[in-house]
Amino acid sequence: MTQQRIGIWIIGAWGGVATTAAVGLSALTKGLTGTSGLVSENPYFKKLNLRDWDQFVIGGHEIRDTSFVEAAKYFSENSGVFHPALLQAVEEDLKSYDENVKPGTLIHVGDTIRSLAGDAVRKFDTETLQETLARLTADIKEFQEKHDLGHVVVVNLASTEPPVDEAAKSLSLAELKDALENGVTSPVPASSLYAIAAMEAGCSHLNFTPSAATDLPAMIELAEEKQVLHGGRDGKTGETLMKSVLAPMFAHRNLNVMSWVGHNIFGNLDGKVLDDPVNKSNKVHSKDHLLTEILGYKPQTLVSIEYIESMGDWKTAWDHIHFQGFLDTKMALQFTWQGTDSILAAPLMLDMVRFTEREWRRGGRSGVMSYLSSFFKSPMQATTPEFERQYQQLEAWADAVSEE
Amino acid sequence: MTQQRIGIWIIGAWGGVATTAAVGLSALTKGLTGTSGLVSENPYFKKLNLRDWDQFVIGGHEIRDTSFVEAAKYFSENSGVFHPALLQAVEEDLKSYDENVKPGTLIHVGDTIRSLAGDAVRKFDTETLQETLARLTADIKEFQEKHDLGHVVVVNLASTEPPVDEAAKSLSLAELKDALENGVTSPVPASSLYAIAAMEAGCSHLNFTPSAATDLPAMIELAEEKQVLHGGRDGKTGETLMKSVLAPMFAHRNLNVMSWVGHNIFGNLDGKVLDDPVNKSNKVHSKDHLLTEILGYKPQTLVSIEYIESMGDWKTAWDHIHFQGFLDTKMALQFTWQGTDSILAAPLMLDMVRFTEREWRRGGRSGVMSYLSSFFKSPMQATTPEFERQYQQLEAWADAVSEE
Amino acid sequence: MTQQRIGIWIIGAWGGVATTAAVGLSALTKGLTGTSGLVSENPYFKKLNLRDWDQFVIGGHEIRDTSFVEAAKYFSENSGVFHPALLQAVEEDLKSYDENVKPGTLIHVGDTIRSLAGDAVRKFDTETLQETLARLTADIKEFQEKHDLGHVVVVNLASTEPPVDEAAKSLSLAELKDALENGVTSPVPASSLYAIAAMEAGCSHLNFTPSAATDLPAMIELAEEKQVLHGGRDGKTGETLMKSVLAPMFAHRNLNVMSWVGHNIFGNLDGKVLDDPVNKSNKVHSKDHLLTEILGYKPQTLVSIEYIESMGDWKTAWDHIHFQGFLDTKMALQFTWQGTDSILAAPLMLDMVRFTEREWRRGGRSGVMSYLSSFFKSPMQATTPEFERQYQQLEAWADAVSEE
Amino acid sequence: MTQQRIGIWIIGAWGGVATTAAVGLSALTKGLTGTSGLVSENPYFKKLNLRDWDQFVIGGHEIRDTSFVEAAKYFSENSGVFHPALLQAVEEDLKSYDENVKPGTLIHVGDTIRSLAGDAVRKFDTETLQETLARLTADIKEFQEKHDLGHVVVVNLASTEPPVDEAAKSLSLAELKDALENGVTSPVPASSLYAIAAMEAGCSHLNFTPSAATDLPAMIELAEEKQVLHGGRDGKTGETLMKSVLAPMFAHRNLNVMSWVGHNIFGNLDGKVLDDPVNKSNKVHSKDHLLTEILGYKPQTLVSIEYIESMGDWKTAWDHIHFQGFLDTKMALQFTWQGTDSILAAPLMLDMVRFTEREWRRGGRSGVMSYLSSFFKSPMQATTPEFERQYQQLEAWADAVSEE
Repeated sequence: MTQQRIGIWIIGAWGGVATTAAVGLSALTKGLTGTSGLVSENPYFKKLNLRDWDQFVIGGHEIRDTSFVEAAKYFSENSGVFHPALLQAVEEDLKSYDENVKPGTLIHVGDTIRSLAGDAVRKFDTETLQETLARLTADIKEFQEKHDLGHVVVVNLASTEPPVDEAAKSLSLAELKDALENGVTSPVPASSLYAIAAMEAGCSHLNFTPSAATDLPAMIELAEEKQVLHGGRDGKTGETLMKSVLAPMFAHRNLNVMSWVGHNIFGNLDGKVLDDPVNKSNKVHSKDHLLTEILGYKPQTLVSIEYIESMGDWKTAWDHIHFQGFLDTKMALQFTWQGTDSILAAPLMLDMVRFTEREWRRGGRSGVMSYLSSFFKSPMQATTPEFERQYQQLEAWADAVSEE
Repeated sequence: MTQQRIGIWIIGAWGGVATTAAVGLSALTKGLTGTSGLVSENPYFKKLNLRDWDQFVIGGHEIRDTSFVEAAKYFSENSGVFHPALLQAVEEDLKSYDENVKPGTLIHVGDTIRSLAGDAVRKFDTETLQETLARLTADIKEFQEKHDLGHVVVVNLASTEPPVDEAAKSLSLAELKDALENGVTSPVPASSLYAIAAMEAGCSHLNFTPSAATDLPAMIELAEEKQVLHGGRDGKTGETLMKSVLAPMFAHRNLNVMSWVGHNIFGNLDGKVLDDPVNKSNKVHSKDHLLTEILGYKPQTLVSIEYIESMGDWKTAWDHIHFQGFLDTKMALQFTWQGTDSILAAPLMLDMVRFTEREWRRGGRSGVMSYLSSFFKSPMQATTPEFERQYQQLEAWADAVSEE
Repeated sequence: MTQQRIGIWIIGAWGGVATTAAVGLSALTKGLTGTSGLVSENPYFKKLNLRDWDQFVIGGHEIRDTSFVEAAKYFSENSGVFHPALLQAVEEDLKSYDENVKPGTLIHVGDTIRSLAGDAVRKFDTETLQETLARLTADIKEFQEKHDLGHVVVVNLASTEPPVDEAAKSLSLAELKDALENGVTSPVPASSLYAIAAMEAGCSHLNFTPSAATDLPAMIELAEEKQVLHGGRDGKTGETLMKSVLAPMFAHRNLNVMSWVGHNIFGNLDGKVLDDPVNKSNKVHSKDHLLTEILGYKPQTLVSIEYIESMGDWKTAWDHIHFQGFLDTKMALQFTWQGTDSILAAPLMLDMVRFTEREWRRGGRSGVMSYLSSFFKSPMQATTPEFERQYQQLEAWADAVSEE
Repeated sequence: MTQQRIGIWIIGAWGGVATTAAVGLSALTKGLTGTSGLVSENPYFKKLNLRDWDQFVIGGHEIRDTSFVEAAKYFSENSGVFHPALLQAVEEDLKSYDENVKPGTLIHVGDTIRSLAGDAVRKFDTETLQETLARLTADIKEFQEKHDLGHVVVVNLASTEPPVDEAAKSLSLAELKDALENGVTSPVPASSLYAIAAMEAGCSHLNFTPSAATDLPAMIELAEEKQVLHGGRDGKTGETLMKSVLAPMFAHRNLNVMSWVGHNIFGNLDGKVLDDPVNKSNKVHSKDHLLTEILGYKPQTLVSIEYIESMGDWKTAWDHIHFQGFLDTKMALQFTWQGTDSILAAPLMLDMVRFTEREWRRGGRSGVMSYLSSFFKSPMQATTPEFERQYQQLEAWADAVSEE
C-alpha cells in the first residue's frame, strides 16, 4: 500500500521564497541537486524517518498574477540564482504546481501590498468577510481532496504586513469568533485569516514572516480548540541568525557589547515592500529584540534595511559590533554576510514542513511547536534566544520522537 | 581567621599576556576597572563563591631580563592598551610582583626563543637536567612559603615551542621518570619540565599555549600519580573562538563550507616568535583542526599568521568563509576581528585560575579539568569542539559544585 | 627684523577639529610630533617657503563654555587620541590660546546648536544684528592688534547649520548690505555673518563645513568688493575623499556603478548635531553629489550618518560599491575606513591656512581660491570633482607661485 | 571599398582571459552585451575613430588541447560568468576562431606549465630552436593571409613564467640574434620567442602577463630594428589597480603608510599555476613594487596569492592598509575586491588592441607605447606609477592623434 502524500499550501505562493522552494522540491525529487542548506538532511535526523521529497505537493494562495514558471525565470535572470538548465528540467513540475494556486485576499494587507494585486484577486474585492473565509478554507480542502493528501501544512510566506494594533492583541477568543461569524471587518490581519482557514481545514500552520498570523492570544487559543499544530514567526536566515549565534559568545565571554550596528541592502520584492516604513517597522523590531534578551542589557543598536535594486535577491549585511573587553579596552568585530535571501529561506520552510508532518504523524498533538525555535527570529513560546540552545531543543525533540 | 591567599605562578611572567594579567589583577583589586572580559564574573558563577581578586599573588619564571613595570610601559606606548594613569596606579603592585620572578630554563626551547634570553637565565646554561628541575621546583615552593599561600596555580604563558617529536608522544611514564632522574637531555620540552616542577611542588597547572606541557601520555599519567589538577591547551581568544562559534551554525544549518580562509596580522612578540616557521606550525595546527571536527568533513582551509610590526598588540583577523546553500548556491561570510591579543587572553587566564582554585577547594580531585574546554583551542579530553556546548559544560560543572 | 606672526581665528574654537589643531600646532612648534597628515609638508611644496609652525597664533569665536584644555582632556579620555603626556606638554600653549576665545553668536544656528550654547554667548541674545556684526568684527581686530599679527585667516569649524533657503541664494549684494545696515533679522546664516565680520576685518576666510558661509552669490560679490581671499566648503576627510579617489577609477575603466551605499557611524559632537535631520540633510547632500559629477550618470546612492556613542571621535565608514563590468557581469568593492575625524580634519585646516597666507603674501589677490579644491567636499568654483586632478591644480599653483 | 579587418593573435588562446575576450568580441559584434568594462568605449575616445568590434578576428597559439567552446562552457559552469543563452549565441563564432588556433611551444616554460601541455604541442618536442621560431612565425603569417587582415596584433595571455635570469637581462642584441640563428637552447623565455615571431611577421605586440616577452634590453632593441609597436607588462585588473589608485591619495595627503597587507584568493587555472612558488615570485614582485614608487618610501608589505578551488574565476582580495595621520595617530583602511579575473582582464586586452591598431594606422611609428601605462602593473618606460596620471597620458595621446 502506498502512503498518501503531503500537501504544502503556501500563502504567497508565487513569491521568491515559495518559488525557490518549488524549484528546489522538484530538483530534489529528480536528484538534480545536493541537499546543502536543508537542516532536516543533517545525519542527526536520519532516525526520524522523515517523508521523502517526492512525497510532497505544492499549492497555495497568491494575490499577484504570475506563475512559478515566470517567477523562476525572473529570478534566474535578475539574481542568477537558478541555472537555466535546472529551470528547464523542473518546468513541468512548476506547471503542475501552478494549477494548485488560487487567489488569496487583500483584507488588511496595507497599501503597498495592495498595489501589487492582480486581476484575479481583485475580483473578490466585494466579498463579505464570511465569504472570504469560506472560500479560502474551501480552496485548501479542495487541494487536499484532489491530490488525496494525508495532511496539509499551510505556510505563510506572504509579504510583511504592518504591525497589528493593540485591539488585536487583547482580543478574546469569543470576540474573535463573533467577528468572524457576524462582523463586517476583520479584527485580525490577513495573515491570521489565512491561518484560520488553515485551522478550519484541519491543517498545521507555519508562519515564516514577521506578520502576526497565529501569534495572537486569541489565535493561540483557537489553535488549541481546533487541535492544530502551529509555529512561527519570521524565518531566521541571515543577519539575525548571525546575531543569535554571535551574541551568546559575547555574553559568555563577558565582553560588553556597547553598540551593534547592522545595515542590510537587497533588491528583491521583499525589499521593495519593506521600503514602506509601516511594513518595515515590523521587520526591524523582529531583528532587534533578541540582543537584549541574549546579553541581558540593551546595547545601542541600529538596524537598517534598504532597497538597492542592483542587488536583486542578493542580500549583503554589514554588521559592526563594538565591544569592551578586559581593562575596559574597546575592540570591534565586523562581518559581511552575502547570501541570497530566497536560497537561504526556502530550505528552512521545507525542513519545517517535514518536521511538522513528523509531529502530526505522532498523533494527538497540537499547539505551538516550540522546538522549532531555531528556525525563527521571534519564536513563539521560546525558552531561549540562543541559536545553539534552540538547536539542541530540536535535537532533543528528535530524540524523544525516535524513541517512541 | 583570614584565609590564606592563592599564588599564580606564571611561566613567561614578563610577556604580554602575563603583564596584562598583572596590571589587571592590581586594577581589579583597587577597583580601577570594570569586570568586562572576565568569564568568572558572569552572574551564573556567583554561586561558586570564587576567591576575590585581592586574594591572589603573582610570581613566575622568565627567560628575558625585564620587569612588569617595563613591559607594561612598553605595551602602553606601543599598543595604546593601558592608560598611563592606570599604569601609575598599579606600579607599586607590579614592583612587588617583580620580586617574585625567577630565571626559567632554555632547555629545548628552540633557537628563536633562545635568542630572546637574558643574562639571568644564561647563567644556568651549564646546569644538569636534574639541577634545573630541582631549581624550578624550589622556586615555586619558596614563593608559596614566603607569601604563606594556600595553593599555587602554575600557568604556562611562554612563547610557543616547536612541535614535540613522536618519541615524546610515545614515552612511557617509567621512561620519563628514568630520564628525569638519570638522563643528560630531557625527553620532553621545556613546557613539560615546568609542569613537572609544578607537580613536584603540589601545584595545579594550566597550559595557555600550543606547547605540549601536560598534554603527553606520560605527563597525564604523572599528573594522576601526583594527584594534581591540570588543563590545556592554547587559549581560545580570537579567530579560533569565532570558528568554534560559527562552524556549528554552518553545520547545523547544513551549509556546506567549501573553503575557510583566515589571515591574521599582528605585531607583538608572539608574532615575532611565530615568524619562525617551526614555532608557527604548532600554532597553525591548533587553529585549523577544529573545523573538521565540527563540520564532519574537511573544507579547504588556509590559516596564515603574519608579523606586521605597525599593529603592535592589535591583531586583525580576516576570515573568508565560502559556503554552499540550497540548490548548490555559493554564498560567503567575511569577518574582521580587531582585538588586542593580551587584553583578550589575560582575563581568561585569571578566570581559569579562579575556577581551578575552586575545584582544588573541593578536595581530593585531580586530572584534566575538561569542563574548561571552552577556554582552549585544543582542549584536552574535550567531548565537543563547539563553543556553546563547551560553555554549557562549564555551567554544568558550576551547578554540580554549587550543589555540594 | 623678525616677521609678524599670522593669526588663525577659528569659528567653533573649542570643537574637536579646532582643539586638535591647537594641540597639533603646539606639538609641531615644540617638535613633539611628526608631520604625518600635513599636506603642506609634502616635499613638493618646499619651494613655497611656507610659514613655519611657530609663526601662528590661535584665537576664535565659540558658543559653548569650555576651553582648549578641557576639550583636549575630554578627547583624550573619550577617544584615546592624544597621549596624556602630549597634553601635559602643550597645556601652557592651550591656555594662552584660550585667552583669545570670545563668545560667538546664536543667530540662525538652529535649535540643536542653540541647545549647546553656554552662558557667555547667551548674554548677547538681546543684541541687534548690527551690534552683533560690530562685536564679531571688533573681536578679530583686537586679536590682530594684541598679537601684532601680519595677517589673520578666519576658519569656520562650527557645527553644520541647516541648509539656507532659496531667498538667501538669490539675495543681491545690495539687498544683503541693506539688511546688514538696517535689518532686524539676518538674511544669511550665522556662518555668513562670521564671514562678513572676517571681511570687515580684512581677513582671509576658509569654510571647512557644509554651512553656506561665503558660498552665496551675494557673499562672493562682497568678497570681491572687500578684496579678500576665501575658499570652501566642507573639508574632505574620509568617505568622500575615498569617493573622489575611487569614482574616477570606475569612470576611467568604464565600470558601470549601479549602486554606491555608504554608512557612517561615529560618536562625537558633530555626530550628535547631525542626528538632527535638518542639519544632516546639508551634510548628506555634500557627500552625495560628486558621484554623479565624476561618473557622468547617477547611480543609486545611499548615504547614512549615524550617531553611535561608543565610537567617540572614531568614524567607521562602510561603503559597498556594486558595479557592472564586461559582459554585464556584476562585481563589488567594499571598504571600511576607520579614522578619527578630528585627526583627519585638523591638519588640512592648518595646511589651508598656510597656503592661504602664501597667496595673501603674493599681494593684490582676492576671490575664491579654487586650487584648494582637493581639500573640500563641495569646492567652490571647482573645475573638476576628481581628487587627483584637484591635487594637480594645487601643484600647478605651487609651480606658479614659486616661479615668481 | 571595404576596409581590411584586424587580427588578434593570442598566445594562450584557450585560457580564461582569451576565452572571455572571444566570447565578448562575438557578443559585442552581435549587439548582445553592453560596453561596460571597455575603456576604449569611454566618450573621450570617440574622436579616435577606433575600429568597430566586427572588424576583428581572433586566432592564436596554445599548448593545451581544448577549444574556445569547451573553455567557455567550463567557465560558465564553474564560475557562473557567462549566461548559457549567451554561449549558445556566440558558439558559431567561437568555432570559427577555434580553427585559427595552432600549437605553441614548451621551450623554457617551467614544469608547472609543461604539465598542462596537450598532445598537439608535444609533437614538436624534438624541434630545433630555429624550427620552432620559423613555425610560430609562419602560423601568424598564414593567419593574416588566410583572413586578408590589414594588421595583426599579437597578445601574450599565457600563464606566468618563472622570472628570467640575469644573463637574459644583460644579453646584447647581437648575442640574441646569434643564439636564435645558431643556438641549441634559447637565451630568452618562451614569451620572448613568441614576441620574436610576432616581430618577424611584422605584427604589433602586447604583453598582458608578468612574463618577460619584450621587456628585455635586447628585445627592445630588436623591436626598434623591426619597427614594431609593443607594450607591457602585466594587466592591471584588481588589487594592483586599487593600489595605484589609493596609494597616491595616501601620498598626497601625507598619510604615512606603515604597512600594506594584501591577500588574494581565487580558483582559476592562473591560480593553480601561481601555486608554483617559482611562477608566483614573478607575480608578487609585479604587485608589490609600485607602492614604494608612489609613496617615496617602503612600507612593510605582504602580498599573498592563494589557490582556493571553490572560488572559481572569482578573485577576492582583502587589503589592510595601516597608516599614521596627524599627531602620529594610527588609522586603517580595509577593502575587499570581489571580481572575476577574466571579466576584468579581457576588455582591457581588447581596448589595447584597438588603441594599438590606431597607433599603427598613424604610420611610421614603433617602440614602446608608454601611453598604455594605465593598463599595466609594471608598465615599460612609464613616467609615473599613479593610475590617474597614467590615464591622463592616454587622454593626451588621444588628443594628439585626433588632432592629426
